[in-house]
Amino acid sequence: MKIAIIGTGIVGKTIASKLVELNHDVMMGTRNVSDKLASTATDNYGNPPFGEWIKTNSKVKFGSFAEAAAFGELVVNATNGSNSITALILAGTKNLAGKVLIDIANPLDFSNGMPPSLLPGLNNTNSLAEEIQKTFPDTMVIKTLNTMWYGLMVNPSLVGNGDHINFISGNNSEAKNKVIKLLNQFGWLDKNILDIGDITGARATESLLPIWLKVMGVTKNGAFNFRLVR
Amino acid sequence: MKIAIIGTGIVGKTIASKLVELNHDVMMGTRNVSDKLASTATDNYGNPPFGEWIKTNSKVKFGSFAEAAAFGELVVNATNGSNSITALILAGTKNLAGKVLIDIANPLDFSNGMPPSLLPGLNNTNSLAEEIQKTFPDTMVIKTLNTMWYGLMVNPSLVGNGDHINFISGNNSEAKNKVIKLLNQFGWLDKNILDIGDITGARATESLLPIWLKVMGVTKNGAFNFRLVR
Repeated sequence: MKIAIIGTGIVGKTIASKLVELNHDVMMGTRNVSDKLASTATDNYGNPPFGEWIKTNSKVKFGSFAEAAAFGELVVNATNGSNSITALILAGTKNLAGKVLIDIANPLDFSNGMPPSLLPGLNNTNSLAEEIQKTFPDTMVIKTLNTMWYGLMVNPSLVGNGDHINFISGNNSEAKNKVIKLLNQFGWLDKNILDIGDITGARATESLLPIWLKVMGVTKNGAFNFRLVR
Repeated sequence: MKIAIIGTGIVGKTIASKLVELNHDVMMGTRNVSDKLASTATDNYGNPPFGEWIKTNSKVKFGSFAEAAAFGELVVNATNGSNSITALILAGTKNLAGKVLIDIANPLDFSNGMPPSLLPGLNNTNSLAEEIQKTFPDTMVIKTLNTMWYGLMVNPSLVGNGDHINFISGNNSEAKNKVIKLLNQFGWLDKNILDIGDITGARATESLLPIWLKVMGVTKNGAFNFRLVR
């Protein structure tokens, strides 16, 4: 499938690599292509600049937000939550219309220092995914994978034999089924993909970030998740 | 130990029964003793009125918020989150001073219908437990047990061999150790009691309520919890 990834951070790169490995046709989108290729900045995790990464991942196409969105039959939002709406507007309402958009982003607010809280107006009685759905009513927004370290998103078997939970929410069940098939390709078993209903479910899953950050602070290792015990 | 329980709902009754079974000396506190005894109303779960319950649980002492707080060496806040501060003020700053207060309550806001959200001002960058700690600076507030169905609080082995998580947070480590001993008596293993630091941890655990409510909505059964998988 032709898949667009909006955002060039570590989450976007991780998803892109996995999708290429699964023989999907991937295009990543950024705000300014030449700036991004010219940048020599490493990311927060000390990874090499994007220009180097894209050279060694030559199967990944690369263009503007709009070019990527136009290319993809399915679009992944892997931008920072605070920039997601702006980035998706640049990607273009028309380029996103009628398509499934997987929203992995979290509306983290770093303005009050560490650990981040959630952005004002995008928590409790609202969520980033809902705001995206409201902004792009002709796009089918599906929230998933946002509750864990990026390494686990595409490789759940890294911990607990892959037997831990990934929530999914969205208003369109056909779109949800498409995304579940992709999650299965990533290694997620159906029994561990919990459908929590419409896109308001994102309020609940984005609200998991504070406990995620606390557990990460204690365990000093992002490779953890939660298993539903009944 | 002499333990006070502020609140007479199903959570308070469940904790009280368990503490009595463990040979603790328990007093429950309410706003108006005679009104509570005279009330014939069943609770939201269809349980009999408190007046009937207290007759069949005759080892549990019963008095006003202030009488209970004065009695307890340790105090449990099992009120509705929206009433907690008011109830604890009635319990009395002096009666709570120098004591450990276990806060099990959640700041749920039912004013926008179901499912509830969290109360404005008591979420994201604040929490109920922090607000209690600020209001009663001479009390050692410990947040725990608020992330699960009341039945599991005192009987974790009901699901998954008791191997699932209970978070604890608070500013005073001696107080935390006292509470952990009580949790051990309830059946919680040390390895499943995760200390997430100071009382700001309550922001994270109170923020688990939205996902708890979503999972409950899907599974139709409160007897579930999450296991940390690493």
